[in-house]
Amino acid sequence: MSQFAARSKIWLEINGTPVLGRGRLVLLEAVDRQGSISGAARDLGISYRKAWSQLKEMETQVPFPLLERKVGGKGGGMAKLTPQTREMMTQFRQLLNGSEDFVDKRFAEVFK
Amino acid sequence: MSQFAARSKIWLEINGTPVLGRGRLVLLEAVDRQGSISGAARDLGISYRKAWSQLKEMETQVPFPLLERKVGGKGGGMAKLTPQTREMMTQFRQLLNGSEDFVDKRFAEVFK
Repeated sequence: MSQFAARSKIWLEINGTPVLGRGRLVLLEAVDRQGSISGAARDLGISYRKAWSQLKEMETQVPFPLLERKVGGKGGGMAKLTPQTREMMTQFRQLLNGSEDFVDKRFAEVFK
Repeated sequence: MSQFAARSKIWLEINGTPVLGRGRLVLLEAVDRQGSISGAARDLGISYRKAWSQLKEMETQVPFPLLERKVGGKGGGMAKLTPQTREMMTQFRQLLNGSEDFVDKRFAEVFK
């Protein structure tokens, strides 16, 4: 059975609605690095519209402010992660890493 | 952060192609219970066509015979799981259960 590989996907939900998965984590990390939504979109090679709409959706889902924004001005709008967003990301990363490692280990045990 | 819930999805791939997830496991279990594809489809409330095409796809993906079939005859065709299919299912169930438990436990630790 050694041709098999295990894959796993882990995400957070609130009231049954998916809120944070690996894709959105990567987007938030890019916002953090770049300091703006447009910078994050460029960094990830996705459209501004796509980045914006994903963040907009998350903002309606999480029970705390997702971003601090300054609209417009020199060089366009700026966006900063709030402490609550950072905390959520840290917790999710811990969940993700521990869990994916476990699935790999478990797979190796079961499929040997 | 206690509004969050963790969700996970685990599946097996061969050469990057998804082969077995929870949905197909349920289908194979139904074939086993019912002894036929048509019985399994009825049991799960899906069309024969859907059940058949999922099994057909799996048959092209796994490197062993998936089912023993007897076509037609009294009461329609019969289908039985091969020993290799049973083994794959058992291993996948073990992977699934251990891993989902771990994700739940890890989530409780991290998000407390």
